[in-house]
Amino acid sequence: MRKVRIAILGGSGYTAGELLKILLRHPGVEIAAITSRQKESIADLHPFLYGRLERMCEPFDPDALVAQGVEAAFSCLPHGASMESIPPLLERGIRVIDLSADYRLRDPAVYEQWYKEPHHDLRNLEHAVYGLPEIYGDRIPQARLIANPGCYPQTAILGLAPLVAERWIDLTSIIIDSKSGVSGGGRTPKLTFHFPECNESVSAYGIGVHRHTPEIEQVLSDLAGQSVTVVFTPHLIPMDRGILSTIYAVPTRPITLSQLQELYRSYYRELPFIRLRQQPPATKDTAHSNFLDIFLQPVRGGRLVIVTAEDNLVRGASGVAVQNFNRMFGFAETTALLP
Amino acid sequence: MRKVRIAILGGSGYTAGELLKILLRHPGVEIAAITSRQKESIADLHPFLYGRLERMCEPFDPDALVAQGVEAAFSCLPHGASMESIPPLLERGIRVIDLSADYRLRDPAVYEQWYKEPHHDLRNLEHAVYGLPEIYGDRIPQARLIANPGCYPQTAILGLAPLVAERWIDLTSIIIDSKSGVSGGGRTPKLTFHFPECNESVSAYGIGVHRHTPEIEQVLSDLAGQSVTVVFTPHLIPMDRGILSTIYAVPTRPITLSQLQELYRSYYRELPFIRLRQQPPATKDTAHSNFLDIFLQPVRGGRLVIVTAEDNLVRGASGVAVQNFNRMFGFAETTALLP
Amino acid sequence: MRKVRIAILGGSGYTAGELLKILLRHPGVEIAAITSRQKESIADLHPFLYGRLERMCEPFDPDALVAQGVEAAFSCLPHGASMESIPPLLERGIRVIDLSADYRLRDPAVYEQWYKEPHHDLRNLEHAVYGLPEIYGDRIPQARLIANPGCYPQTAILGLAPLVAERWIDLTSIIIDSKSGVSGGGRTPKLTFHFPECNESVSAYGIGVHRHTPEIEQVLSDLAGQSVTVVFTPHLIPMDRGILSTIYAVPTRPITLSQLQELYRSYYRELPFIRLRQQPPATKDTAHSNFLDIFLQPVRGGRLVIVTAEDNLVRGASGVAVQNFNRMFGFAETTALLP
Amino acid sequence: MRKVRIAILGGSGYTAGELLKILLRHPGVEIAAITSRQKESIADLHPFLYGRLERMCEPFDPDALVAQGVEAAFSCLPHGASMESIPPLLERGIRVIDLSADYRLRDPAVYEQWYKEPHHDLRNLEHAVYGLPEIYGDRIPQARLIANPGCYPQTAILGLAPLVAERWIDLTSIIIDSKSGVSGGGRTPKLTFHFPECNESVSAYGIGVHRHTPEIEQVLSDLAGQSVTVVFTPHLIPMDRGILSTIYAVPTRPITLSQLQELYRSYYRELPFIRLRQQPPATKDTAHSNFLDIFLQPVRGGRLVIVTAEDNLVRGASGVAVQNFNRMFGFAETTALLP
Repeated sequence: MRKVRIAILGGSGYTAGELLKILLRHPGVEIAAITSRQKESIADLHPFLYGRLERMCEPFDPDALVAQGVEAAFSCLPHGASMESIPPLLERGIRVIDLSADYRLRDPAVYEQWYKEPHHDLRNLEHAVYGLPEIYGDRIPQARLIANPGCYPQTAILGLAPLVAERWIDLTSIIIDSKSGVSGGGRTPKLTFHFPECNESVSAYGIGVHRHTPEIEQVLSDLAGQSVTVVFTPHLIPMDRGILSTIYAVPTRPITLSQLQELYRSYYRELPFIRLRQQPPATKDTAHSNFLDIFLQPVRGGRLVIVTAEDNLVRGASGVAVQNFNRMFGFAETTALLP
Repeated sequence: MRKVRIAILGGSGYTAGELLKILLRHPGVEIAAITSRQKESIADLHPFLYGRLERMCEPFDPDALVAQGVEAAFSCLPHGASMESIPPLLERGIRVIDLSADYRLRDPAVYEQWYKEPHHDLRNLEHAVYGLPEIYGDRIPQARLIANPGCYPQTAILGLAPLVAERWIDLTSIIIDSKSGVSGGGRTPKLTFHFPECNESVSAYGIGVHRHTPEIEQVLSDLAGQSVTVVFTPHLIPMDRGILSTIYAVPTRPITLSQLQELYRSYYRELPFIRLRQQPPATKDTAHSNFLDIFLQPVRGGRLVIVTAEDNLVRGASGVAVQNFNRMFGFAETTALLP
Repeated sequence: MRKVRIAILGGSGYTAGELLKILLRHPGVEIAAITSRQKESIADLHPFLYGRLERMCEPFDPDALVAQGVEAAFSCLPHGASMESIPPLLERGIRVIDLSADYRLRDPAVYEQWYKEPHHDLRNLEHAVYGLPEIYGDRIPQARLIANPGCYPQTAILGLAPLVAERWIDLTSIIIDSKSGVSGGGRTPKLTFHFPECNESVSAYGIGVHRHTPEIEQVLSDLAGQSVTVVFTPHLIPMDRGILSTIYAVPTRPITLSQLQELYRSYYRELPFIRLRQQPPATKDTAHSNFLDIFLQPVRGGRLVIVTAEDNLVRGASGVAVQNFNRMFGFAETTALLP
Repeated sequence: MRKVRIAILGGSGYTAGELLKILLRHPGVEIAAITSRQKESIADLHPFLYGRLERMCEPFDPDALVAQGVEAAFSCLPHGASMESIPPLLERGIRVIDLSADYRLRDPAVYEQWYKEPHHDLRNLEHAVYGLPEIYGDRIPQARLIANPGCYPQTAILGLAPLVAERWIDLTSIIIDSKSGVSGGGRTPKLTFHFPECNESVSAYGIGVHRHTPEIEQVLSDLAGQSVTVVFTPHLIPMDRGILSTIYAVPTRPITLSQLQELYRSYYRELPFIRLRQQPPATKDTAHSNFLDIFLQPVRGGRLVIVTAEDNLVRGASGVAVQNFNRMFGFAETTALLP
C-alpha cells in the first residue's frame, strides 16, 4: 500500500493525541512531522505514546513540510490560529483537514457573529468542504480543504438528517439537548475543568449562544432547502469522553416507529459508521470508536425523541478526520477506524 | 423545645441514610425506632453513622411503635411495600411521611397504568397530601399522610410553576430533559448501576414512559386548571447525587428576561429553599442542601429555557421530607435543613 | 452563648469554603470579615453559599479587623503568604489558626530544606503550637498561634501514635502509602488536576520528597523521644475528597489483634473524633465529617498494617481548625463538627 | 497469514469483552465460537460490538468445538468453573489459555488453602505453564495449557523480578501496595461495586489474605531460588480500569538510581511491552494498552520505591493472554497488541 506522508499541526492537545493513536495503526500513513510551539518530545506531551512514537515536535514551517514530502496536513490548532497556518500549506499544494471551526461556516458574516472576529481567509473559505462524510460524502474525494465537523453538530445533524431531508418534522420545533464529557473543552487548564469543580456535577452552559449552533443550522438548512433554526443546549458531564444528544421534534404527520426506523435504515444504507440501535445507547458503547449510534422513539403527545451517541474525540473529531482522509486519498473508508 | 418521637421504616437505603443524617441535627426529633428486614446495626448499614448512632434495626411492628411513643413515621420503603405498612400506622394515630410513590397520584387508575399494579389503599389515598411545600404548603400542617414528592418532579414542577399558573406558556410545548446521579436508582445492586457500566457514560432511559411523568402532569394540571401533558426524558449521569433539569417551553407572548425573573421572584417570595440564580447552576452548588436552584433564559426563536438543580437525596427526598415534617409539627421550616 | 468574631484570610480556596460551611452552623461564631485579593462576593466564589452568606470579600487590613472586633483569624492563605500576614495580627492581639504549613515545622532549617525558602517569622514560629488536638491537646487552649496540621500527616500520625509512643514497633520500619482526592491539590487550575488528565487514573507523586514528610517525622519523634524517619508516598485518586493511608510497620515483639485494639482504645479514650473500626474503612465513611477512622490488622510475616481514613478538607484542614478553635475559646470540642 | 480458529469460554464478562476487542483486530485469528450460559447475542452482552460482531453465544460443548475446527480456547470462566471445562478440551487436543486462577498455583495444597476448595484437575495442573512471557517466555511456545497470570501479580512480579533475581534486596522486606480500578472485581453486580458505594471513595480490602499473594510469592520464589513472602494490600479505586502498584523494599547494599535503571534495562531488553519510565507513570498512560510501565526511585533511609502501572483488563488479563497466544502459535509477539 502506498504511504501518504502527513503532518499534524498543533500536537499538544487531545485531538492531536487521538489522531496520532489512529494514524499509528493506519497502513497508508507515514507521520512526517508534528508541529507545536512546545518544543518537546511528543511522548512527553502524550505519555501513552512512549514506546510507540518518540520524536520531537518542530516549529511550524510550510517549506520544511514540503521538503519532507508532506501531502496532507491535519490542523489541530485552535480556531483563529488555524486560518493563519492553513493558507501557506494550500498554496504549496498540501491538502488540509482542519479540525478547528475556521472553515465550517460558509458565510463569513455568520462566522464573525458567533466567533466575534472577522474571518481572515475568505479565499479558501469559499472552496472548503464540510467534512461530514454521511452527508457530503461525494464532495470529499476532490477536496483540497476539509472543514472537519464539530463534535456536537455531528450528533445533531446525523440524528435529524433523514427527518429534515424528508420534511417529516416541523422545522421550527427542533430542540437539541446535548451532554458532553470534559475533554470536549480542550486541554488548557481552567477552573471550569478543574477536577474538584466539574467532578460530581452537571451543568448547562452556552445556553442559546453556543458556537456550534450555526453549524448545525447550516447543514440542516442545506438538507431542508430552507432556513432552519434550532434550540441547542450543551451540558458538561463528569466523564472524560462521549456525547449524548437527546433531540426533540414535532412530526408533521403521525409516524410509527417502524416507519421511522425504515426511513433511517434506508437513508444511512451502506454507511459503515452509523448504527441504528434498538435500545437507547450509552456513550460508553461508542467509546474509542468512530461509530455514531442512533435511537428513535415516538412518545406521548405525538413527539419524536431521537437519541444519538458518539465518542467526541474519535467520531467527533479525529476519527471522522481520518474517515475524510481515507475518502480523500482513496483508502477504504474504515481503514484504521475499526481497532 | 419539645421532642417528637419518630420512626423510620426501611432503614437500609440511601433515603433513610440521608434522613438519619438530617434528623440527627434536628433539635425537635428523637429517633425512637428504625425498622428493617435486615436485623443489623444501623451503623453497619450506613458506616458514616459510627460514633453517631449505633442501634439495631427492628422488625416492623405498629403496636411496638405506638408503645415507644412514636408520633410520626417516615416510610423509606419501596412503592408497593409502603402502602402495605402505612395503613396500620395511620389507624393507630401515627402521622406518616411516605417517601415512596404510593400516595402521590390521586387517581388510582393512573397509578395502575404507570405502576402496573392496582392501588391497595384507596381509603388513605383520598386524604393524602402531595408534600411539595412551595405549592401545597397550606395543606401540609394538618395532613395525616404526606406523599413526599419525587426527585425529578420537584425540579420540573418548581421550574415551571409560575409560567404554568400564569399561563405564560403554551401548555402543549413542555419538554423536560433531566440528568440524575446514580443514587436516584436506589441501593440495590443492578448491572445498570455497576460501577464499570455506568461510570464514564451517560444514557437516557425510560424515554416517554418514566413513572414520574404523571406526577409532574398532575401538579402542573392543578396549577393550570386544565390537563397538561409533558415530554419527560431522564438520563443517568456518572455522579453520586444531583439532578439537573433543562426545561423547554414556548411562550404564548414575548417575554423579557426581567419579566421572567420578576414573575419567579414574586411567585417564590419568602420561600427559603428556592434560589433564583443569575448564572446556570451546577448540581454541585446544591449538593447536600435542601436548595432548589432556578435559572431562566429566553433564547433565539422565542423559546424559553429553564434550568433547575437540586440534590436528589436531600431536596429530592429526605430534605423535603423534613421540610414537610417541620410544617406538620410546627417547627421553623428550615430547622435542620441549613447545615 | 457568647459570639466570637472571626476573620478568614484568603477566602477563595477549598479550605476557606469548607470552613465557612462549618462556621455557619457554629452557634458561638460571628463571621466578621473575609479577606481576598479577589474583590468578589463570597457566594460568587463559592456558589453553594447563595442564600446563606452573601457578602463582599475585603482586602487584608489588620487595623480594620481590629476595628471590627475580630478576636480570631483563620488563615487559608498559601504557605509563604501566611507568614507575611500573620505577624501583624498577632501583634494586635488577634489569635490565629494558620491552615498553611508555615508554622508547622519547629526547626527553621528543616522548613528551608523542604520549602526551598527561608522562614520569615522566627519570632512567632517559636511559640506556635502544632494543632493536633489528640496529641497536643493540653497546649491548645492557651495558644496564640496554632499551626493547623497537614492533611496527610494527621492520617499518618494518628495511625501510628500509640505504637510509636509505646515503642511497640521498629522505628526504622515505617512506610506510609497515602491516597488523596484531588481537592488536596488546591483550587488553582493546573494540568495535573485538569479533569481529563487525572480522572480515570491513579499516580504517585512527590516520591520520597513530599513536604509533609518532615511534619510526620517531627511529631513521631516527639512521641518516640528519638528521631524517627519514615517513607511516605502520596498518590492522586480520581475523587473530590478523602485520604486513605495504608501504613506498614514491623513490631518489636509479637502483637495480637486484641492487644493492638486495646492499646488504641486506651490511647484515644474520650477523644470524640477517633473511630476504631472493625472493618477497613472507606474514605466515604468519613466524607464531610471530622472523624478519623483507624483499622488495625496484623498480617503474615509478623507485619502490622494500619489503615486510616479522613476527609482531607474537614478533618484534614477546616474541621480540625474548628476543633482547635473550640479548645482555644472554651466551646465543647464537637461544636459545629457533628452536622 | 494462516488463521487459527479459536473459542472463548464464558463470553459475558469484562475479560471476554476485552479479548474480543483484541482478537477482532488479530489477522491470524478466526473467532469460531463463544460459549455462555446466557444464550444471547454477544453484541447484546457487549454493546460496543454492534456492527462488528453479532452472533449468538452457544452452550459449552467440547465436541462441537472440535467439529468447528477450534485449535485454541480462551477460558474466561470464573475459577472453579474453569477447571471443570478445560480437561475435556485438552483431551480433544485443543490448547487452552485459562484466564482464571485455577492453574496458576503449582502446589494444590496452596490452592486449597487460599481458594477454600480442593483442586479438581491435578493431572493438567502439573503441566500448566504460568503465562508471564517476560519471565517464563521460553516455556510458552510448547505449552498445551497456559495459566494466564493475575492482574495484580504482574505488576508486583515485573516490578521486582530484576531485584529479586539478582538478590539486590532483602527478601523479607517486600511490601506491595496496589490500587485497582473497579473492573478488576468482575461484572457481577455487588453492593461493593454499586456506583454510589465505590464512587468518590477509596478503600483497602483483603488485607493480608488476598488470593493473589501466593501467586506473587510463587514466582518471586522461583526467581530467588528460595522461599519469598510478601505483604500485599489491594485497594479499590473509583475508576474503570488500571492498576498502580507501589512497591517498597530494602536493598542489601547501597544502590544508585543509575545502577537500578541499568539493571532493569538489561533484564527487560528486547521485551516490547515493558517501558522503563523517567517519571512516575499514571495508570492512564497504559489504558487500553498491553504496556507495563516501571518507575524506580531510591528514597531517604536507603529504601527503594518501585511504581508499576498497567491496564488490568488488557495487560492484566486479555492482552497478555493474546501475547501468550502469539507465542504459542508463532505470531509476532505484538500482533494485535499495539492498536
